[in-house]
Amino acid sequence: MDYSKELPCEVRKLIREGNITGQTSGMCAGYAQANLVVLPKELSYDFLLFAQRNPKSCPILEVLDEGSRYTKFMAKDGNIATDIPRYRIYEYGKMVGEYTDVTQFWREDLVGFLIGCSFSFESELLEAGIPVRQIEERCNVPMYNTNIPCAEAGIFKGNMVVSMRPIPYADVPRAVEVTAAMPRVHGAPIHIGNPAAIGINDLQHPDYGDMVTIREGEAPVFWPCGVTPQAVLMASKPAFAITHAPGHMFITDVKNVRLK
Amino acid sequence: MDYSKELPCEVRKLIREGNITGQTSGMCAGYAQANLVVLPKELSYDFLLFAQRNPKSCPILEVLDEGSRYTKFMAKDGNIATDIPRYRIYEYGKMVGEYTDVTQFWREDLVGFLIGCSFSFESELLEAGIPVRQIEERCNVPMYNTNIPCAEAGIFKGNMVVSMRPIPYADVPRAVEVTAAMPRVHGAPIHIGNPAAIGINDLQHPDYGDMVTIREGEAPVFWPCGVTPQAVLMASKPAFAITHAPGHMFITDVKNVRLK
Repeated sequence: MDYSKELPCEVRKLIREGNITGQTSGMCAGYAQANLVVLPKELSYDFLLFAQRNPKSCPILEVLDEGSRYTKFMAKDGNIATDIPRYRIYEYGKMVGEYTDVTQFWREDLVGFLIGCSFSFESELLEAGIPVRQIEERCNVPMYNTNIPCAEAGIFKGNMVVSMRPIPYADVPRAVEVTAAMPRVHGAPIHIGNPAAIGINDLQHPDYGDMVTIREGEAPVFWPCGVTPQAVLMASKPAFAITHAPGHMFITDVKNVRLK
Repeated sequence: MDYSKELPCEVRKLIREGNITGQTSGMCAGYAQANLVVLPKELSYDFLLFAQRNPKSCPILEVLDEGSRYTKFMAKDGNIATDIPRYRIYEYGKMVGEYTDVTQFWREDLVGFLIGCSFSFESELLEAGIPVRQIEERCNVPMYNTNIPCAEAGIFKGNMVVSMRPIPYADVPRAVEVTAAMPRVHGAPIHIGNPAAIGINDLQHPDYGDMVTIREGEAPVFWPCGVTPQAVLMASKPAFAITHAPGHMFITDVKNVRLK
């Protein structure tokens, strides 16, 4: 079934009713998809401050009101406890289960954060005629831990995680330009070329995701990655947290071009 | 005494020692100046959330750690309790005093917010050859209450306050372009022309600041204004707050061009 032409509200309804439980990549073409992090209120100030201090790796699209499951800005009548195909629940930093609906776990002290995702800028790269290798090779984007420290905020600290896309040398400036114009979905690359300069010693073995082919005449280009806030958060071992499962995103009503 | 060519650290030192107590307009040319809001921690989550939801009128440049007077990102060794020429202290939304140093009022539960200021984009407008009338006429920029609602956050709600600059018709697109490139200091205009469309019924009598001349062939152009968060905050009558006095800003070590 191809959902690329469907409206976000229709697809969210199908997900909510349990009719879609797989990854959302490619669904509702042109509309932004978002990462989800849900935390108890007591951690939410530090997390929001972490995002404010690290907007490249943690671009917040919406913070829901305390206890609310309903989006007000990024989607009409969106329900973050039902409208994502697959969730993960963490206790003290350890994953304790995957669910297709987390209504039963909802609490009045929870705060939901929707965070920008590189799906948005990848569609703009493709529009600009720039290849996106992991889409061509139908796998996950390669991601790496780096030696670039995030700005600390309260209990949260750690290094930036980056995603890598091989870009033909001649297209690198345009790839910077296209993504720089979209700061709410990670923006410009953080580094171009020489992986060792940012602490990546084995490019062939990413820390997360899958390796992709780097062809002759291509530079590895590194973007701040939405895995950063999740990795930093989990390192602090919060008593309770909910996230989306990788690739299973919240589909918003907002078009990518509006996030420029 | 002309401080336009001095370094920010030198001028902050003079302010800290009580040798400068006047307005900072024009000091340290090229360096960003910032608004200050200091609140008890209990209000800081709602205020940070208000800023996240209203980035045009409330662009946060730095949030200091709880209880800390020392900046970490916008200025080296900056002290927000001493490095501003004049402060205002508010109790329950009412101004109770002006001071040149607020060290004696500092508390361990206070959180300082530095907020972007239109001084930064005005220097870029001038660079682009676009007139800035209130600088020509040596008065304060005219500011107006509007009917544009801010996104609510916790206890904070209210309408946007805008600043107005008359721009020759032919320069309006360029004025939009120049300021749109600086989202951390209010960004693009929120409205161009017809004041009644945003609830301004008497352009000749601004709600704050001074009226300036609008010449034949000029459109009034309206930008989101940093008075918005202060007005919204004070309407909630917080038990305690510290702000800068109007025009007496915190001078950062960061050049305006780095805020693009």
